[in-house]
This record gives sequence, structure tokens and C-alpha cells, in this order.
Amino acid sequence: MSPDRWRELGQQLRVDSVRSSAAAGSGHPTSSMSAADLLAVLLDGGFLRLDTENLANPANDHLIFSKGHASPLYYSVLKAAGIIEDAELLTFRQLGSRLEGHPTPRIPPTDVATGSLGQGLPISVGVALAGKRLDRLPYRVWCLCGDSEMAEGSIWEAFEHAAFAGLDNLTAIIDVNRLGQTRETMVGWDLDTYVRRAEAFGWHAIAIDGHDVEAIGAAYEEAVATTGKPTVVIARTMKGRGVKAVEDQPGKHGKPLDDPEAALAELGGERDLSVSLARPEGGEPHRFPAPGADLPTWDVGAEEATRKAYGEALTALGAQRGDVVALDGEVSNSTHSELFREAHEDRYFEMFIAEQQMVAAAVGMQVRGWVPFASTFAAFFSRAYDFVRMGAISRANLRLSGSHAGVSIGEDGPSQMALEDIAAFRAIHGSTVLHPSDANQTAKLVAAMADREGISFLRTLRGKTEVRTPPDEDVRIGGSRVVRDGDDVAIVACGITVDQAVAAAEQLAGDGISARVIDAYSIKPIDAATLQAAARECGAIVTVEDHWAEGGLGDAVLEALAEADGRPPVHKLAVREMPTSGTPDELLHGAGIDAAGIADAARALARETVG
Amino acid sequence: MSPDRWRELGQQLRVDSVRSSAAAGSGHPTSSMSAADLLAVLLDGGFLRLDTENLANPANDHLIFSKGHASPLYYSVLKAAGIIEDAELLTFRQLGSRLEGHPTPRIPPTDVATGSLGQGLPISVGVALAGKRLDRLPYRVWCLCGDSEMAEGSIWEAFEHAAFAGLDNLTAIIDVNRLGQTRETMVGWDLDTYVRRAEAFGWHAIAIDGHDVEAIGAAYEEAVATTGKPTVVIARTMKGRGVKAVEDQPGKHGKPLDDPEAALAELGGERDLSVSLARPEGGEPHRFPAPGADLPTWDVGAEEATRKAYGEALTALGAQRGDVVALDGEVSNSTHSELFREAHEDRYFEMFIAEQQMVAAAVGMQVRGWVPFASTFAAFFSRAYDFVRMGAISRANLRLSGSHAGVSIGEDGPSQMALEDIAAFRAIHGSTVLHPSDANQTAKLVAAMADREGISFLRTLRGKTEVRTPPDEDVRIGGSRVVRDGDDVAIVACGITVDQAVAAAEQLAGDGISARVIDAYSIKPIDAATLQAAARECGAIVTVEDHWAEGGLGDAVLEALAEADGRPPVHKLAVREMPTSGTPDELLHGAGIDAAGIADAARALARETVG
Repeated sequence: MSPDRWRELGQQLRVDSVRSSAAAGSGHPTSSMSAADLLAVLLDGGFLRLDTENLANPANDHLIFSKGHASPLYYSVLKAAGIIEDAELLTFRQLGSRLEGHPTPRIPPTDVATGSLGQGLPISVGVALAGKRLDRLPYRVWCLCGDSEMAEGSIWEAFEHAAFAGLDNLTAIIDVNRLGQTRETMVGWDLDTYVRRAEAFGWHAIAIDGHDVEAIGAAYEEAVATTGKPTVVIARTMKGRGVKAVEDQPGKHGKPLDDPEAALAELGGERDLSVSLARPEGGEPHRFPAPGADLPTWDVGAEEATRKAYGEALTALGAQRGDVVALDGEVSNSTHSELFREAHEDRYFEMFIAEQQMVAAAVGMQVRGWVPFASTFAAFFSRAYDFVRMGAISRANLRLSGSHAGVSIGEDGPSQMALEDIAAFRAIHGSTVLHPSDANQTAKLVAAMADREGISFLRTLRGKTEVRTPPDEDVRIGGSRVVRDGDDVAIVACGITVDQAVAAAEQLAGDGISARVIDAYSIKPIDAATLQAAARECGAIVTVEDHWAEGGLGDAVLEALAEADGRPPVHKLAVREMPTSGTPDELLHGAGIDAAGIADAARALARETVG
Repeated sequence: MSPDRWRELGQQLRVDSVRSSAAAGSGHPTSSMSAADLLAVLLDGGFLRLDTENLANPANDHLIFSKGHASPLYYSVLKAAGIIEDAELLTFRQLGSRLEGHPTPRIPPTDVATGSLGQGLPISVGVALAGKRLDRLPYRVWCLCGDSEMAEGSIWEAFEHAAFAGLDNLTAIIDVNRLGQTRETMVGWDLDTYVRRAEAFGWHAIAIDGHDVEAIGAAYEEAVATTGKPTVVIARTMKGRGVKAVEDQPGKHGKPLDDPEAALAELGGERDLSVSLARPEGGEPHRFPAPGADLPTWDVGAEEATRKAYGEALTALGAQRGDVVALDGEVSNSTHSELFREAHEDRYFEMFIAEQQMVAAAVGMQVRGWVPFASTFAAFFSRAYDFVRMGAISRANLRLSGSHAGVSIGEDGPSQMALEDIAAFRAIHGSTVLHPSDANQTAKLVAAMADREGISFLRTLRGKTEVRTPPDEDVRIGGSRVVRDGDDVAIVACGITVDQAVAAAEQLAGDGISARVIDAYSIKPIDAATLQAAARECGAIVTVEDHWAEGGLGDAVLEALAEADGRPPVHKLAVREMPTSGTPDELLHGAGIDAAGIADAARALARETVG
């Protein structure tokens, strides 16, 4: 215990937060100053155990700033720990600097990007789950939260799951400075309310004065000593603490101090304290046995649902690779991730009806090198869209499998139908979007996803489809499949519409129209060469998808042909009216994306082309 | 009090849930049977006050099934109340039936679509807010929740906001049947835990046996009598209650009973009880005065941020129309909705950092005919994407304004940059997507949004842009603006890139290349005629947007030209690498979407065209 030094270090972190924000001309110094003492004790009290010589040491503790806008404090911490130099600190927010406006993994040891509130804690739950159930290492996850973000529901998903999973390796620190961007939070400084909420959600809660370094140290000791449940340290603080011009003042959010020199003087000037962080306990991460297995295959002509093929392929992949893990949002008998659970129970995570926490947990697990596959209905990934978006900024490698695509699910109605998922996932940076039409394609794409960087999304079907792809055929990300040749019209389909396109081509053949059918199972990246060949060789193109007309397969095809000097007309068939309940066949027909609708469109185009 | 009749009515609701699901061959009878007694007492105890002769009576109570999969129960309730006939009940889940797999507003008096869990309660908060602060009528909102959905964070956003707003006109009923789709929930039948959570979030909580009709009646009495805070009735129930083959059994979720005839016999057979619902208290909704105001205008050549223009226009609109209300996610000094708050405090709703609850509240308010505009950073609407998706199924009229679009925000970095929002909103059914480049456009589009059906999204900029649109020029949804004429190349821009496109056109003119600049401020619907004219008249097209390459302006342009027989090559300029911090100019340049990048692309295309 060295309270005087802790206080000094706290002041240094404030000074550096003020300096870096002043140099940048923007940033959030006041939101940093409130939490400075909390971080000073974490660093210098030996609580944060981090091998600064080897930031990739698997035994390292993890420090996640859920309140990412307190980045000046975070970078000041990195400087105090000797991870960055003062000169780099002053590059904050400049082009080329690793010190972005909100933390990203560009600056090690930062695990994930934060800055969209309410995400750091659920991601911390994922890292802590990895520590306890996968790595089986005694590292601890320390997560600094702001009080404004306690209004985000995702925080309470995290509270519930962390307690359910008994994550005593997780400590949340809530910086209750009471002031949000424009006003006081709903709870203000009523720490008792936070304590009661946390306890009701199963956490050990400790309320303290967040500027009393001895109380902070005692709280962290208690957190470390608490077993069986996570601990939250709820700290009453003052925004802008230490500088009267901004301390506990409204209107001081997200801007550098007006007079940084005066502030530095008030804070006692620059300091140059350097902290030797505690070293982590050693140990190697646990590895799961991988006895091996063949990917499943299906005979051509068999009927199987691609969601079932997903479950079977993932289960085999789990036997091939010990690093593959699965998560599901309490629909594992619909997505068929239950097969993985049955085979690899230790690596299956039931995340219940909390899709934000599910995706966040996957982000947290991949921080530690695990290969998570998370599944739910494709429509319900929309619940976690901000988490997926931020996952891309985190450079996370995520594999997401969404079942029950489109109107073809039938009777359950539109709330359960994914009709915007392709568009949403295409617009995620660096993403991969796959929509196989049969079981053999699915199995190979699942295996390919495990090695794929970035965020990959697999869209699967509720109903069975005919297996058309021979088990030994090449199926790859970026590929496609010419199901049938022809040159009057090319029909580009994916998923459920491939069967419909083939049936349409058969009808068209009877009318003397030769239709090429392309199965574009890889929507992003799309097989541009095959599409461009079709544009050159066919008189017209019809795209057909069980998805809204915007942002899906049709738009991906148009993009692939955008720069072509000339190309035939492209007619997009897609779902254009709000669907209702009905049988799959009725709904495909109603949307005009069944064989009849495709054939009609192709005939009309063929007439125009000939005419 | 007529407990015997309540028990009989509960059995009738079970019988009708079993019958309708059996007729459909799918559905969720067991999830209906658990809550049947809860609904029987609500109906027959006089608690639900609904004018069945006038389902649009503004004084009516609202009944929202947050657990939308209990639709068999919901429709059985409508039958018991005389709102539908038995014959219609048996059309459940058939094509053409108003009784979809999950409730939608196609069957009055259903306010909103449910079926994505965790949405009904936050929407109920919106309806209750409307009752208390807007309509100022004594109607009550009754919301039936499942226990599985208590894991959704949005439920806790609703709990927090409802207590904060003192919504004693809201009663939540939690059907704690403990069994989810595949297993027991995290909380099981531990009612005390739910009670403690609810109380910690500021609610009055009552735990009961959900099959004890007298206890149910007493709980509802207590709920109605409780003032100053919302009440939650936490009811221990059994899934499949009343039929031994399914009662409290795993594996019975989401399927009709194997032997419905035996089940009906066990339940005592069909009944034909008819309930006369209590009549609501009368009263007319409150109307806010609308003294009138002119929309703001700016002189051509002035500089203003479109987010500021949003705030000013919305404030004027609020003075023109008493039905306009505003909500914000605690960033009102960034989105400039603070101007509305200052002018029309009674109609401003601070929703704090809880974007799901914000959008849900807007959905709830439009149920009662109010015209909500909700604002936050455009990036953070991704947090509420599932709520927007479901809003479309609810046929909700929502106006969403997202600020801080794209890399042009600069130093804050990618977590704060909306780069996928156009794609996400284009893929919402029936949506309108607007991205004005200057203040005058913004003001007119804000006014147009108020009259627009469906979900409209306005994307605004952080930085100032030059006002190019004369105040008296026609600006409309579906329109565009030819900023500059030319025919070697057409540059299609929107938002921040319009200024860049104009600068590029000036550079190109120096090279003897004549560039047409089109300001596509309406991205959906897009001005197809103007784009098709450009395709006919110009040698090439460049699209340029501060957004990822997928699903945005470029794809919208390609779609507008898809069916054209021939068209020039289209080159899409967009953000393609993950941005960092930097100044707006640096980042626009780095992404290749500034004047230099546009001019380079146009030159290359012009060369190809000439060559």
C-alpha cells in the first residue's frame, strides 16, 4: 500500500489526460479525470498483472475501457506502465497515430475497440468466459464502465450472464461521475441503487468514494478475494476532478480544457512516475483434444436443410480443431448448434435470449485466439448489429450463422424472417457473406469460415433443399456454381431460390429459352468473373433472392458488373411487399421469387432482347 | 370477483390455443397455456378497459404481447372479447388470415408487431409515455412478457425508463413458466430474484402463483392502485398448464400438441364464454398549441451543419404542428434536438444512452398518432436495428435522424462514424433514406418526413457545408439536384461529398472534361429519371459517398440503372479501408472520396470512354 504514490499517480494520469487532449484539440479529458484514481490504484497496487515485455503473454490480465471515450486516461495508463512514450501520447487523435479518438487494437495490448457504449462489459464477459472455461488460466478481466452506459440494456445482459457463469475473474469498475453528455444520469450519485441492481443480478457489489485511494485498494483486494461471483466496484467520482473550472460542472463533456496550462498547475504539474506492473502468474492455455473427423457429405439428390448441415459440419469441425467453440442464443434446436453441444459440451456456450451478449462473448473469446461460431435466427442478429459493426473495428474474427432466412420459413411470419440480413452484413467492413443452397456447400463453407479473417456470416434455410453439389466439387469463399448452362438469360440465385431457378430454367427450355443458372453461394466476395462472363454471353440477367430488394444478391451482382462497358439488362427479383404467414410455397409464390415468377421475368426479358 | 368463471375462461383460452395451433399445424400452444389464467382475469375482472365497438377509441387501454409467440392465446382473447369469431380463430397462420404466426397490426386492436423478444415492453413504455405526457388520458398499458425475454437487455432499458418516468399507467405481467425453447431459463422459478431486480429498477413488484385466479385479481387491483411507479406482476406458471402430456415438460416449445382431442377432453372441452370488456373512461386526447412558424432558411453561400439545420427545422415544425414530438439518446447537443427541447419542453423526451428504448418509445408514441422524431449519432441507430426492422412490420411511422455520418467527422475515429447506415436503412421495408448536403435541403426534408408513412431516416453531417440550394428551390423526397451540368462524366454525390464533387468538376473543367454533378439527397426513393438521363447523356458515371462501398448511394444508383439496356460504366467511390482518427479533410482524402479522388476517377473513366 502506497497511498501517497497512488494519489500522485492519479494526478499524473489527469495531467496526461489534459495534455493529450489539449494537444489533439479534442477528446474527453473530464471523463478521464473522474476515473484517474481508480486506474492509478489498479496499476500501482499490483492488481493489474500484465507482462509489459510480452503483451501477448496468454497469462496477462485484460483491461477493457467500456467507456472508450476515456481514451486520454487509457493512453496515460499505457504511458505510466511504460508501454508508450510521452511523445506518442501527444500524437493522440492525429492521422497515423495508434492513439485513436477511442481505443482500437491498433495499440497493443488493447483487446477490442470501444467507443460505442455498453459494449466493453459484455465483451469482458466473453474474455472472462474464455479464461475460465477455455484457456483455464487465472487471468483477470478489469473493465472500466461509465455510469451513463449503465442505461444500455447490453450492460444488464452482461451482468446477468457473468453471474450465471460464476465469473469471479471479472471485475467491473463503475465510474459514477453522475454527469452524462448533456445532463445528470437517471441514477445520479445514488450508489445504493446501483448496489441493489448489481446484487439482484448476482454480483458482489462494493460502493466506495472513487477518489479515496485506500478505499479503492481495499475494494480491489475484496474483488480479487471474492469467489463464485463477479464483483463490481461502484465508485462515486467527480467528472473533471482536480480542476475547479470543470470539476462536477455541466457542459464540460467531450472537449479539451479551456486553459490547460492553468489546469496543469492546479494539478501540481507534470510528473514522470513509472509503474512496474505486477507480473501475471504463468501457465499455458488449455487445449482441447481434437480426435479428428471427416466433414459430413450428402449424396446428390438427398434432401437436407442447410441449418442442419451447419450443425453437423460444425460438430465435425470441432472434432478436427480444438480451438473451435460454439455459442447460441437459446435456439440451438433450430440452428442445430445443439449437435455441437452434444459432442463438445465443454466448448458450447448457451447465451440465452441475449444476442448482444452472445456476439460480445464471441468477440471476447476471439481476443484469446479461440474460433467462435455464434448462431441464432438470422433475423435476430439485427439485435446485435452495433456489436458486429464494432467487431469489425476490433479486427475481430467472428463466424456468425443465421438460420431461418427469408419468407421460405413460412407460417411463423415476418418477425422471424431475415430479409435484410444480407444487406446488413455486406455493409460490415471486411465481411464475408455466404448463403449456400445445399448441405454439401454448407459443410465446406463452414470449414472455410474457421480460417477466414474478419466477420463471416452464413445464412441458412429452415426447410430442406435438394443436394445438387457433388461432395467432391470445389466450394470456396468467392466461388459460385453454374448449375445449368444456357445463354438467352442468366438466372443468378442463392439459397432457397436455386431450386426455383432450376425449375424455372426447365420451364423456359420448353419455351425455347436457354437459361444459365448460377448459384451465387458466396455473395461477398462474389464470383465476379463468372458473372461478367454471363453478362458477356447471355442476353439478359435475372437475379432472384429471398431478401428485400435492397443491398442483397441483386445489388452484389450489379456491383460486380458496374464497371463493365456494356452489359445486358439486369432484372432483380426480390421480396417487395411485407410478407405474412403462409406456407413456404405460397409465400415464395406471393413474392414472385418462385419458379413461376422467375420464368415470367426471364420470358419478358428474352422477348425484349429478341425484340 | 368471479373466480369460478375466471377459471373457466382460462380453460377456454387454453382450449382455443390448442385448437388454433392444431388447425394451423404449428404455433406455440404451451407458451399460451401458461399465461391463460393471467389473461382470463385481465379480461373478465374488468381490468382491461376496451371499447370493442370502437377499437380506435383513444381512451382504450392497450394490451401488448411482448411474448408474441403466445399468439394463440392472444387470438383466443380476441375471440373471448367478441372481436373475432371462432371461424377466424381457426384461420391462424394461413395465407390471407389476419391472424399471423406472431401478432401484427393487421388484426385490430393490435398496436404493434411482436415476435422478436424484448420489444413489447419497451414499446409499452412508449405508449404509456404518450398516455401520461402527450394524450394525458387515463388509459393503462398491460404488457405480457415471457420469462425467457427477461434476458434481453432491452427489457431492462424499459424497466429503468418506466420507473424514471413514473409510469404508473403501465403494468407488466411476467409469465414465469421457467422453460425456454431448449432449457430452463437462467432464473428458473426463482421469483424472488425477479422481484429484487424489478424493485432495484424502481418498480412495484408482486409475486404470485399465476394459476391462482384470486391472487391474480388481487395483484391487478394492487397494480391499478399503485401510483408514482409502474407495477410488475411476476407470476409463477407452468408451460402447457392443464395438459399432463406437455405441462412443465421440456421439448414442448413451439409445436402443436400431439393429441389435441385428448388435450381438449382433459381441459374440459370447448366452451363459449363471452366477455364484455370494461369500458374505458372517456376523454379527448390533449392537443398541444401550434402557434405556427416558418421553416428556417439559409442564404446561398452560407455555411451550416445539416445537423444544426435539423434541430432548427424540427423546432419550427414543432411550432407548426402540435403532434410532432422529439426523442434523443442523450446527445441532444450533438444532434441539435436540444433546440426542440428548449422550445417545446413538454414534447421532448430524453431517452438517455438506451437506443433500443428510444426507438421503441417512438414506436409506442406513433401508435397513438403522435409524430415522433428520434435522434442520435447515425452509427448508434445500429444498436436499435432490430427495433427498426420490427417497426416496419408494425407499419410504424417513424422519423429517425442520425448525425455524425461517415469519416468526415474526423478525430473521434471509426466507432463514432456511421458507414453502414445507408445500407441498413435502405434494407428496411418501405423506408425512406435522405442525406441532404446543405441546410436548406435539410429543413425541407424534415418537414416532408412528418407527412411520410413508414420509416424515414435522415443522415446529417457533423461539419458545416456550403448552402448551395436556394431557399425557394423545390426539394422533395424522391428528388435530386443537378448542381452543375456536363456530359463527359456524371458525378453522383450526397452529403459531404457534394462539395467535393463540385470542386472536382471545377478541376476537371480545367482538363477539358465536362462533369455533371448530381446531388442525390434522396437515396431511397432515388430520382431514377435524373440518373437515367445522366446514363444516356454522359460517357461515364462516378458515384461518391462517405459510406462503405456496399448498399449505399452507389448501389442505389446501380439499381436505378439496372434494367437499362445499355449504360456507361459506373465507378463507385466509397470508403474501403477502416478509417482512423484524423482531420475530416485528411480522412476524406485517405478514403479517396475528396475532390482529388473524384477527379482522378473521372479522368480515368473519361480516358477509357474517349479511348
